[in-house]
Amino acid sequence: MEPNSVARCAQLAMLLEVSATPKPGNIDRDHNYTDTRFEHFLASSAGVYPVLQKAAKSESEVGSLIRCAIIESNRWQDGGNTHFGAFILLIPLVMAAGRCTDKACLKAQAQQVVRETTVNDSIELYRAFSEAKVHVKPVDELDLDDASSANKIKEQGLTLFKLMEIAASYDMIANEWINGFERTFECASSIRDKVPKYGINDAVVLTFMELLSRNNDTFIQTKFDDKKAEEVSTRAKIILQKGDINVIMNDIRSFDEELLKEGVNPGSSADIIIAGLFISLFGGMRF
Amino acid sequence: MEPNSVARCAQLAMLLEVSATPKPGNIDRDHNYTDTRFEHFLASSAGVYPVLQKAAKSESEVGSLIRCAIIESNRWQDGGNTHFGAFILLIPLVMAAGRCTDKACLKAQAQQVVRETTVNDSIELYRAFSEAKVHVKPVDELDLDDASSANKIKEQGLTLFKLMEIAASYDMIANEWINGFERTFECASSIRDKVPKYGINDAVVLTFMELLSRNNDTFIQTKFDDKKAEEVSTRAKIILQKGDINVIMNDIRSFDEELLKEGVNPGSSADIIIAGLFISLFGGMRF
Repeated sequence: MEPNSVARCAQLAMLLEVSATPKPGNIDRDHNYTDTRFEHFLASSAGVYPVLQKAAKSESEVGSLIRCAIIESNRWQDGGNTHFGAFILLIPLVMAAGRCTDKACLKAQAQQVVRETTVNDSIELYRAFSEAKVHVKPVDELDLDDASSANKIKEQGLTLFKLMEIAASYDMIANEWINGFERTFECASSIRDKVPKYGINDAVVLTFMELLSRNNDTFIQTKFDDKKAEEVSTRAKIILQKGDINVIMNDIRSFDEELLKEGVNPGSSADIIIAGLFISLFGGMRF
Repeated sequence: MEPNSVARCAQLAMLLEVSATPKPGNIDRDHNYTDTRFEHFLASSAGVYPVLQKAAKSESEVGSLIRCAIIESNRWQDGGNTHFGAFILLIPLVMAAGRCTDKACLKAQAQQVVRETTVNDSIELYRAFSEAKVHVKPVDELDLDDASSANKIKEQGLTLFKLMEIAASYDMIANEWINGFERTFECASSIRDKVPKYGINDAVVLTFMELLSRNNDTFIQTKFDDKKAEEVSTRAKIILQKGDINVIMNDIRSFDEELLKEGVNPGSSADIIIAGLFISLFGGMRF
């Protein structure tokens, strides 16, 4: 697929994900937080296009592209961190897609892209974390605000893939890098399979709920704790067991209101959904 | 402004316009028609990016760029005509913006772009009309399905600006070409002025209502008749006279439900709002 088409699939994935409603606890077309609103996600999605285009052409390296994406996202909106985690998944996938001559090779290419990352990619990502003031659990003892982290990364020869290996046990985004984007590809299949029956909005919502029910969300773990993340996943599982789709959608709406009130937003799950949507659109999904 | 930034302003304008709710009778984030949905507008906005980029670099001519925009829009979604009228306004404005060294010169540049159009631009637009099967009132006796129209255009030396001159008396989009994008620039000012007080969503909704109250919508005239368009504009005027913003917004919601039920969509007004949003974003508006 030509680079411009790859970039458009990635951008459309960002737009479809933030639009899908209700995604319990997260911003969507009908739900805003006070300082971060739906329109900030639209502006971030528009703003990042040239970086997605560069990624599809492999015109730069993984770490530097993620950092550029965050810079552009923040230049185009004042709502704060909208797509940080999403870029960590999207950038290598977009690079891989740009290199594919055959759509079936996306998974293998993506694995290659992340395995080939360097120490410099780690340093760029750390710069991005620190510049964007994103709340993440620092990997190992590499404090984000610590200027000496770059030296430690160099001394220890920590490539970005190695950093993700260290973080994989407690961070679902890092885990995707290590496990060959397993959950991301599962989400892609789930969305594609559900679209004919439920339409694009509900296909995204239901897949988001499935993902949430099977994995404790890292963003909730970092903002609250493991117990809260576990609770949210258990609730999602119970709702999905209700069988009737109308009952499920109604329960999702109530669940959404509750989580929004508490400020519990499963942001990492949303990031994986964006990457999953990208894979389905790259694979030719229509809606 | 560099071409990529111009293109992003145009794309973001398309996204903000379709998201703004409720825009009486039109598709927005909360209202769909059966065959055309909000997501089709998102896909069209993503799909058209490379054409906006080309326009910002003046890499092709007005007519051909409008036709390419329509082709890309339709390649990325199955919802039919989402942005035809918008492209007729956006393309010359984006070309003009790409040529501006100073933001203040946008209006003059835009007037120059449309005045310099050629016979070939007319032929390209006619091809686009016919390929996209858009319902428009044909200009003069140049039937859209008539293959001989291209010959007539050539014989009579009808540039696209001349065609718009002929249509300007009954088509508000054509009229913008002739009057120096007067209403479009008014919308831009109105949106920019309202954002600090009302936020981006309501700034767009209120400006849309003002535009509708002052002009009979061409899309309604074509789909229904002059009387219907007049009625809709009168209703919009009465609602805006209510003074209190909460009463106004409530009345807009009821008005929206009514028009949607009747299938009365003021599509040409929406096209001008997109172009107005582009001008405000190009001018540096934040939200």
